[in-house]
Amino acid sequence: MTDWKTQAEAYKARIAAQIPAEWRLSADVLSNLPLNVTRLPETSGLLTQREVELKALDATALAAAIATREYTAVEVVTAYAKAAAISSQATHSIMDFFPAEAVAQAQALDEELARTGKVVGPLHGVPISVKDMIGLAGRARTCGSLAGALDPALQPTEDSVIVAALRKAGAVFYAKTTNPQAIMHLETNSFLGETLNPWNTRLTPGGSSGGESALIAGGGSVLGIGTDIGGSIRNPCSNCGLFGFKPTAARIPKQGNTSGMPGQETIIGAVGPMGVSARDCELFISSILAAEPWRRDPTMVGMPWRPESARYTHGGERPRIGVMWDDGVVLPQPPMRRALSAAVERLKAKGYDVVDFKPYRTAEGWETLRSLYFTDGGAHIRATAAASGEPILPLTEWIMDGAVDNTATQIRALNRARDAFRLDWWRYYAEQKVDIILTPAYPGPAPVLGTSKYWAYTALFNILDMPGAVFPTGLYVDPSNPADKADKEGDRAWLSEEDKLNAERYDAEVFTGAPLALQIVGERWEDEMVMKALYGVSEAVRV
Amino acid sequence: MTDWKTQAEAYKARIAAQIPAEWRLSADVLSNLPLNVTRLPETSGLLTQREVELKALDATALAAAIATREYTAVEVVTAYAKAAAISSQATHSIMDFFPAEAVAQAQALDEELARTGKVVGPLHGVPISVKDMIGLAGRARTCGSLAGALDPALQPTEDSVIVAALRKAGAVFYAKTTNPQAIMHLETNSFLGETLNPWNTRLTPGGSSGGESALIAGGGSVLGIGTDIGGSIRNPCSNCGLFGFKPTAARIPKQGNTSGMPGQETIIGAVGPMGVSARDCELFISSILAAEPWRRDPTMVGMPWRPESARYTHGGERPRIGVMWDDGVVLPQPPMRRALSAAVERLKAKGYDVVDFKPYRTAEGWETLRSLYFTDGGAHIRATAAASGEPILPLTEWIMDGAVDNTATQIRALNRARDAFRLDWWRYYAEQKVDIILTPAYPGPAPVLGTSKYWAYTALFNILDMPGAVFPTGLYVDPSNPADKADKEGDRAWLSEEDKLNAERYDAEVFTGAPLALQIVGERWEDEMVMKALYGVSEAVRV
Repeated sequence: MTDWKTQAEAYKARIAAQIPAEWRLSADVLSNLPLNVTRLPETSGLLTQREVELKALDATALAAAIATREYTAVEVVTAYAKAAAISSQATHSIMDFFPAEAVAQAQALDEELARTGKVVGPLHGVPISVKDMIGLAGRARTCGSLAGALDPALQPTEDSVIVAALRKAGAVFYAKTTNPQAIMHLETNSFLGETLNPWNTRLTPGGSSGGESALIAGGGSVLGIGTDIGGSIRNPCSNCGLFGFKPTAARIPKQGNTSGMPGQETIIGAVGPMGVSARDCELFISSILAAEPWRRDPTMVGMPWRPESARYTHGGERPRIGVMWDDGVVLPQPPMRRALSAAVERLKAKGYDVVDFKPYRTAEGWETLRSLYFTDGGAHIRATAAASGEPILPLTEWIMDGAVDNTATQIRALNRARDAFRLDWWRYYAEQKVDIILTPAYPGPAPVLGTSKYWAYTALFNILDMPGAVFPTGLYVDPSNPADKADKEGDRAWLSEEDKLNAERYDAEVFTGAPLALQIVGERWEDEMVMKALYGVSEAVRV
Repeated sequence: MTDWKTQAEAYKARIAAQIPAEWRLSADVLSNLPLNVTRLPETSGLLTQREVELKALDATALAAAIATREYTAVEVVTAYAKAAAISSQATHSIMDFFPAEAVAQAQALDEELARTGKVVGPLHGVPISVKDMIGLAGRARTCGSLAGALDPALQPTEDSVIVAALRKAGAVFYAKTTNPQAIMHLETNSFLGETLNPWNTRLTPGGSSGGESALIAGGGSVLGIGTDIGGSIRNPCSNCGLFGFKPTAARIPKQGNTSGMPGQETIIGAVGPMGVSARDCELFISSILAAEPWRRDPTMVGMPWRPESARYTHGGERPRIGVMWDDGVVLPQPPMRRALSAAVERLKAKGYDVVDFKPYRTAEGWETLRSLYFTDGGAHIRATAAASGEPILPLTEWIMDGAVDNTATQIRALNRARDAFRLDWWRYYAEQKVDIILTPAYPGPAPVLGTSKYWAYTALFNILDMPGAVFPTGLYVDPSNPADKADKEGDRAWLSEEDKLNAERYDAEVFTGAPLALQIVGERWEDEMVMKALYGVSEAVRV
């Protein structure tokens, strides 16, 4: 009988073997990688000048350039496949790679365009990377466990509803990306090992969509599919300085995907885009909803994308912004405070109405949410690990700590507690008379691997099911900046034990170069308003 | 210590005492009531001619007449309060009655209109009756149990979200109506006794919104609030020859209401209108959604009423109709078959494209749905009855038969089974290429009290969450019509044991005068399309 480690190594070897020999980095290069590998594809010498150029475009510009035949779909996906192969060798972000299939798909699109003169849809030829748990016909799925990786029932024979919609819009698929064990870390560690942050490989790219954030920030993808039940889109986008959008949960299809807790409905996850521009996030969502996917998906509402519905109730032309400087439990680490202050200054200078937003019931929200995740006491997750013999990882144990198995009666009580919390928090929110909240997505930049133990900055808006987006500020951790110096005991009063631990985890030298991103959040169902705000706010804030 | 019977009698006496002396029927009248009491208010001699006249209007016409000051709101609610008091003495449809408060509310609306020249909203002055379980500030709620009736926690101190929206639109509240034990019968029997069908008091008005259907059909209400998790709007509307609309479950507010199984989410109930015209159903829904109630309700989607979105995908100007003559398990009783045949003839004569729709997986759908209702094995319902000592009624025992308490893991499996059923059935539906299904809402007219034991004609569309509406055909059970003769053993092959039982329960003489109504159903989220079809189809069918 083969032990789990041997099986895991064999699985990893299969993934490594998917990279064509000509795209492999030499042992010498690999052993001398810089801390920041975001430009590794461009500096590898493996990309043509034309490939470097097209890689500077966002997905919207790429789609336009393919439609006008400036680039072919084959050229574009070849460039991204090369870059992905290169980047993943440094960050381990890919868990299934199929460039030949992608080129064939792109070839068919090029032929269709040549034949008809028309694109098949708004994403014609745009390569899109796909998180492990998302169903892509014929491609691997592990759900972060070795048992999952080896389970035929988990390997999709058909596209999930979201992939089918993106494929119909013209998207090309070439790589699937890692997610962590149980898909329940704000990092990306599993039997496949750890995925690294390309901005600083000592740090985590975040999670659970951390394969996506690492691949995009590493230049190996321009747009990807993430999922978010506690921050899993927003956290990795924050850690890697990307744009990400977590919609109201029921607005984007989930059918045909899976999770670490299938059938769990006390708290619902959201699916959304991760990428390099606000407009790419909107292109992603509008392309999917144009396919009316709700006709084939019991998990979602029949609501088209309605940009014309976006209105600022409290602002006018611009949203009225409430700044939540901290969540009342954990103060952001110094560089994140610097980024938020700089953002507020820039917004005010540009005429935005910006007010303070006092945190409200964060700790209760987080405790209520935690009780909703593991309604079976973590039994399914433990059984999945036990099936292969792989260990439960420390971050999995940490997040499941104290989870209890619930009866039907107890689950009903949890549902009621969730709704009571929502109602009370929404009432508070309405009283503040702001259109959006501006706040960090994590109380600091990307943490050191294995230390991501505070979810509330994102997770609060999962229990509240409020749409949120993350965007880069253009600022980075800078050890030479006095404002980025760590808080020491005595510098300030700790808000909580967790605050103290979070402060202690930060070190400017270790975190150097980590990007600083921020989050905006708006009212449930007001996804279009949050998207509209994302354009304006991200542009105003960007240095 | 007082036993449950004494307490129940005291509660009933309190309700009876709410009827002013001048609106009480004499013992002589009460002991000589005809079988059909639908015109009892008009024939009682207690209504003025003007009251009789205004009672002939639907809610839409009433609102217009109040807006143009043809009638005052006080006149209108006085007429309906009188009629309700009279009707309920014959059918026992009211469980809380507050005409003085209603007149005061109407008075304020009249003054507002006089002062400003404007109505407060589209329902200005329209009286609306309210099902027991719906939260109405300061008024009683029993949820069909004596323990509930006596439980201070169940008595609402504020309006539910739907009532607040209707109140904001100008509706006047004057009566709450009965629902059955556990709110889980297709009849209306509880510690308060049985509510009767005003068309034929040997029969049930249906349930669980049977107080509503009895009151409206009895002339005591023009428009009411029902709820439907297995047929509880459509069944009573069918039994009483009314219009009713069960929307996609998440489209109408539920916050502030309760149920016999609070917190149960594996299957979600819908809230909707019961009334006397299609346009009143639409007025009800559009008035509620105009208040954007989703901002205060975690149970619903942020989707305005969008009549402009109504399109017939397969028909053109008219919906393409699939006729489901039976559900594959139980054939409708003879008069219902006659009504459906007549409807199809009339539709074809008017140019509708009508095709047969073969039933699909009805029995599996029903079994799956039943497993979703009582996820706690009925523990909450049994505990509620035990709290007062009242017995579990036979129809409550029948519907809970075989229910088991579930673990979290089992509930997850139920959720997955529900979604798998939906997906498969929706796929089948899409293949039939019809816009709506036309089918009965029950395999027969209103049954004899205590015998409503087949839910699938409505309940199938609860597990599928497909919007449905019921409308009267203008036909009635007629013992002199040979087509209405009962099926006897040997007349035809039984489809199932349930079919045989259903056939045996019918007797033309006993059922005489019962109205015959039909149901239409459309795709999930296509509530506006179903509403549009309801106008056309009900008008085309009506004799």
